[in-house]
Amino acid sequence: MELLRGGVDLGGTKIQAVVVDGGHRVLGEARRPTPKDRGPQGVAAEIAATLAEAAAAAGTAVSDLAAIGVGSPGAIDDAEGTVTQAPNVTPEWTGTFALAAAVSELADGRRVRLGNDVDVGTWAEFELGAAREFDSLLGVFWGTGVGGGVILEGAQWNGRGAAGEIGHLVVRVGGARCGCGRRGCMEAYAGRQSMEAHARRLVDKGQQTALFEIMEKRGRTNLSSGVWSRALDRADPMATHLIDRAIGALAAAIASAVNLLDVEAVVIGGGLGTRLGEPYVDRISERMQRHLFRNDRPPAVRVAALGDIGGALGAALLVADQAPATPA
Amino acid sequence: MELLRGGVDLGGTKIQAVVVDGGHRVLGEARRPTPKDRGPQGVAAEIAATLAEAAAAAGTAVSDLAAIGVGSPGAIDDAEGTVTQAPNVTPEWTGTFALAAAVSELADGRRVRLGNDVDVGTWAEFELGAAREFDSLLGVFWGTGVGGGVILEGAQWNGRGAAGEIGHLVVRVGGARCGCGRRGCMEAYAGRQSMEAHARRLVDKGQQTALFEIMEKRGRTNLSSGVWSRALDRADPMATHLIDRAIGALAAAIASAVNLLDVEAVVIGGGLGTRLGEPYVDRISERMQRHLFRNDRPPAVRVAALGDIGGALGAALLVADQAPATPA
Repeated sequence: MELLRGGVDLGGTKIQAVVVDGGHRVLGEARRPTPKDRGPQGVAAEIAATLAEAAAAAGTAVSDLAAIGVGSPGAIDDAEGTVTQAPNVTPEWTGTFALAAAVSELADGRRVRLGNDVDVGTWAEFELGAAREFDSLLGVFWGTGVGGGVILEGAQWNGRGAAGEIGHLVVRVGGARCGCGRRGCMEAYAGRQSMEAHARRLVDKGQQTALFEIMEKRGRTNLSSGVWSRALDRADPMATHLIDRAIGALAAAIASAVNLLDVEAVVIGGGLGTRLGEPYVDRISERMQRHLFRNDRPPAVRVAALGDIGGALGAALLVADQAPATPA
Repeated sequence: MELLRGGVDLGGTKIQAVVVDGGHRVLGEARRPTPKDRGPQGVAAEIAATLAEAAAAAGTAVSDLAAIGVGSPGAIDDAEGTVTQAPNVTPEWTGTFALAAAVSELADGRRVRLGNDVDVGTWAEFELGAAREFDSLLGVFWGTGVGGGVILEGAQWNGRGAAGEIGHLVVRVGGARCGCGRRGCMEAYAGRQSMEAHARRLVDKGQQTALFEIMEKRGRTNLSSGVWSRALDRADPMATHLIDRAIGALAAAIASAVNLLDVEAVVIGGGLGTRLGEPYVDRISERMQRHLFRNDRPPAVRVAALGDIGGALGAALLVADQAPATPA
């Protein structure tokens, strides 16, 4: 019988699960909102439920899965199976939680392996997505924040465990305050959370925008990627200005990373990257030109090809033969 | 008989040669100005003459050297033994010159291997200098410009051949014009050439400084590292201000690189880095703190330990067993 695997992408707003076969084909998938009020154990239960739903959609059951991979925010200890500090998932997740064991217990004792969400997303694009023909890659996930993953000579580069923080490259010394508390980080200009805070300040100062009207019409409480996309389609001046500013910051930070590492390719994904897609990724690529030290042969810059399920597919790779190297 | 090796650091102002034994001990050294008016062939002749002088100081002759390594600016093709575009060495060096063959012919047919000057300088600090106990390193050479070298898991990372351009990380989008023609590069604030141009503009605007007076007293035509050092010792306000600005830019770019790569160590050398030494490197390290994403465990930040002859020692390593991996 063919070996099926489960993959779960644990995010701040949703849990995405897939069930794949040996050829990485998606046989079933499911998505549920991340529960915010039941702590890490409640999140583990919802992961198991989402997996069960994906398995049912695939015409199978969790008990038939060979193993399960989970991509999570926070600091991952792969050997211990723990996740430390993932308050974006649920506010109570401030300490260390044995997520692998908790999910395994609720998933028929299946083996569970953890990975960093951004790392597995980058790995998925490298193995199965937009960067398959390259040996070195910078993955950029443009969403609430801006995360990054680095692959060099076909292996993930984790440094001392915290490499890849592309969102915290400094693009303006003494510049805007970032969610991380520091100044001038790229994410302070390009992260959706920072952009929303900026938009709210501009509105408080009396500036006009359709952003919040679109948000309310869509029944949202914050500026989702879809809201930004709609406002851009309507040529809303504030949205256009803030996205342009974000593109400038992304281009500078990515070009800086390329000047340092000279990678072959850059893949841009995440909620905003995937939603805005090729026209905007092309604008980032064009804007990078003014900062590239070797602008005669820029890296390939592509939209993430796996879309919303890239993270879950990458998580499933954690328990395949193509599993990325574990952090040193 | 013990195998002796020659190492040459080819710079824009000087040629530094060493003769070393199997234990990397310096048996003899010599230094000559880089000839500016005789083209690449004239530079090759002066390299051979400087080597002969170093060999004589070591009580030997070039004919007794096992092999010779040369670290050079410009684009190096190790296999072909060529250097392309090194106008900082001599203005006529705009095309490709077969430096390895030219030096070999003038050096008794000894085998000559070429490396990038910054890469061999970084490698020397990694093998023999301030970063011996680490596996990953960012080398930063703070001088006329600001060059960088990246070592990951004990091997040089060259990317597609042009990695390590730490001086061209963007620290201010739309900022100061850099010597490379782009805007906002770290080197536009921290490179000695940019700082001198800035100082001259401030003087043209009527500001006072002792920098140019010190320069003339020392019989210089430009602001050398020694001139900056003297001006700082005298608490010259313009020098103090410009060096402080340089430290801010260096700190931001180096912290950005650490946020991306999470290396264990940073070594700061180059004319200014070596001259200003530990107090200023400590200031860069302190200033990095405000930008480090993981500021609870910063990398070790150290002054280059090999000083002026680091580049030549690294060049000699090109022809030792510990030779760095060649660029992919």
